Amino acid sequence: MAFINENFLKLKSGYLFPEIARRVRAFCEQHPDKAPRIIRCGIGDVTEPLPRAAISAMHRAVDEMAQRETFKGYGPEQGYEWLRTAIAKHDFQRRGCDITEDEIFISDGAKCDTGNILDIFGRGNKIGIADPVYPVYVDTNVMAGNAGKPTERGTYRGLIYLPCTPENNFVPTPPPRKLDIIYLCFPNNPTGAVATRAQLQAWVDYALKNQSIILFDAAYEAFITDPDIPHSIYEIPGAKECAIEFRSFSKNGGFTGVRCAYTVIPKTVYGRTKSGEKYPLHPLWLRRMTTKFNGVSYITQRAAEALYTPEGQQQMRALIDHYLTNAKILREALIKSGLEVYGGINAPYIWVKTPDKMSSWEAFDKILNDALVVVTPGSGFGPHGEGYFRVSAFNSRENAQEAAQRLASLKW
Amino acid sequence: MAFINENFLKLKSGYLFPEIARRVRAFCEQHPDKAPRIIRCGIGDVTEPLPRAAISAMHRAVDEMAQRETFKGYGPEQGYEWLRTAIAKHDFQRRGCDITEDEIFISDGAKCDTGNILDIFGRGNKIGIADPVYPVYVDTNVMAGNAGKPTERGTYRGLIYLPCTPENNFVPTPPPRKLDIIYLCFPNNPTGAVATRAQLQAWVDYALKNQSIILFDAAYEAFITDPDIPHSIYEIPGAKECAIEFRSFSKNGGFTGVRCAYTVIPKTVYGRTKSGEKYPLHPLWLRRMTTKFNGVSYITQRAAEALYTPEGQQQMRALIDHYLTNAKILREALIKSGLEVYGGINAPYIWVKTPDKMSSWEAFDKILNDALVVVTPGSGFGPHGEGYFRVSAFNSRENAQEAAQRLASLKW
Repeated sequence: MAFINENFLKLKSGYLFPEIARRVRAFCEQHPDKAPRIIRCGIGDVTEPLPRAAISAMHRAVDEMAQRETFKGYGPEQGYEWLRTAIAKHDFQRRGCDITEDEIFISDGAKCDTGNILDIFGRGNKIGIADPVYPVYVDTNVMAGNAGKPTERGTYRGLIYLPCTPENNFVPTPPPRKLDIIYLCFPNNPTGAVATRAQLQAWVDYALKNQSIILFDAAYEAFITDPDIPHSIYEIPGAKECAIEFRSFSKNGGFTGVRCAYTVIPKTVYGRTKSGEKYPLHPLWLRRMTTKFNGVSYITQRAAEALYTPEGQQQMRALIDHYLTNAKILREALIKSGLEVYGGINAPYIWVKTPDKMSSWEAFDKILNDALVVVTPGSGFGPHGEGYFRVSAFNSRENAQEAAQRLASLKW
Repeated sequence: MAFINENFLKLKSGYLFPEIARRVRAFCEQHPDKAPRIIRCGIGDVTEPLPRAAISAMHRAVDEMAQRETFKGYGPEQGYEWLRTAIAKHDFQRRGCDITEDEIFISDGAKCDTGNILDIFGRGNKIGIADPVYPVYVDTNVMAGNAGKPTERGTYRGLIYLPCTPENNFVPTPPPRKLDIIYLCFPNNPTGAVATRAQLQAWVDYALKNQSIILFDAAYEAFITDPDIPHSIYEIPGAKECAIEFRSFSKNGGFTGVRCAYTVIPKTVYGRTKSGEKYPLHPLWLRRMTTKFNGVSYITQRAAEALYTPEGQQQMRALIDHYLTNAKILREALIKSGLEVYGGINAPYIWVKTPDKMSSWEAFDKILNDALVVVTPGSGFGPHGEGYFRVSAFNSRENAQEAAQRLASLKW
């Protein structure tokens, strides 16, 4: 009989969102009259239609697939060069980052990439993870056997947690100890925090000194409004020697249902063998992608390319502004209700402290019951998320305004 | 410094197709006058436009993404229920296989799935692989650390190879020794062989007796013309207790550039822990997919669904018939030239013995030079592929006819 990967059995039983869905379902069954009025500010999924430029590009690409002369079969596993070139130019070179198209790998999602990246790393790495954190970083390390035994607090003995609290503005500082791999995500999911240039420089310096790899998740970079905040880790000198960056079209272009993202691995980032030899990560990921992946839909890649046209850029900007205005509306309502509020300025997420040491799930239940609004309990993102909840700004304006009104008048 | 996955360093340096591309490029540089006349019968990529039903479905889906009311964000990671239901009904229940929609997982490719499936298996499994074989099975096992050291013959000490030869009609027989995981692919890539009901029953019986898992790659099932040949492993009694099946829309619907496939894991297939407890594979894969994957493009899933409509079925049939007619034309030409020819009847691949112990690469070079046709050297698929070459029928009729004419008049 085949052995299973027993690391899976160490995973906490429920992913956060199924438990939320269960509680909402139970509430709706008990209060069928109230069910239609529920507004979901929980999961970070976009609600607005795709930019027109992407729609037109997809119609054109579909038509190409209907004629032998223009039909496209397998594309390059790492993505079409025209898309990688547009990305390199617009997202990096324009911002002064020396990233070339052959350092970019197109994929079907940042969730996939942040999980699959562990394929190219060996065992025995000391892994640093922010707390609270996007659960995929933790769970994929558990599956890969990097996390060790679970504790009663819901953490894992083999991971090094970097607490994010109001005291450090939810940006962890490099620890005295040596870490081999560090996950950083800015603008942050779930806290909405951003890292300043100085804070990122401290991490890059740390990584260079300790020869660590930074896995930088920049899926929400388009929400940065503050001109002093870096959008890419490669804006920081030295990052090209120590950082991998993950990007996504899910939240800027609204591609959550279309599936396109990319990963940047500069050719100058190295790992090492057990015997101490340096080895570049770029060829490992290229081999991983050419062997276990077959590229992203041609139609989807044409849609992503269209986001870089002048119309696409403008339409994407309008989409981001829409969600950022929602964030502002919701943020102000939460402040008005007397709560301690973080994020929501350079990010689509608002991170809210529960009053009077109320637990995250208690706050979730109260908000669902009294305001008919679904939020995400902070404890689902890690122990330091306990006592917080996350409000997502991904919604129609109408829903955001209505949710804001209800949240503002909540009695805590 | 972060440890890399050193198993990657055991991979053979070049994947087969880059080496083919290199030789073709070199030939074109030497003979620029002949370059435009080259016909590619190498890589198994489709050439004909997508079925009209899929085109229309994608246009409709793109339009849905342009309106808030019909916009789709994240879908279920395992795929939309309407697609899974159509698959369960048409591909399985209609053929008498008791497979339900919740045992089906939609993905972006069978290459991805056959690679990623190793995530749910532990170390220490004895793995049986046909020889010759689709290189992805071997390479992903090397990456996962299952393959052990490479040998000079290009094999790996940790894998158990099951030779496929004319003597066994290229269908390996179950070995006396116990294997934990066995990769089977029928209709076969590269040999074009199919397995009879009795041959598959022997493997299922073996797997049930030894509590092995069969990983059954049926990506080419639509090419089966013989009514007695099973399309799915689940047509074999007992398979629901021991087999995982991989399917793809790449070759039947022509989706190589659109990216859609699926994997079937019946709830009755079990692995075991090191301590000997049985554990179902279905929840492991569900957890893998919900954690490391975010579903297939909504637009793509609508295209796949359209293949199951009456028009879609008819158009897909026409597409398959087109390639099968190519296969017939090419097959007859190769026979005419005096070669020993296999496959090409229930499969889009023709497997040809080189004459006079000529090596696969020698034959490749001769065919490229003398006929301006690109084939795939059999040795690229494993040691038992040496002395063969593969001819792909994926082409326009015009190209297939021209290639056939040239191959028929080759002097060996």
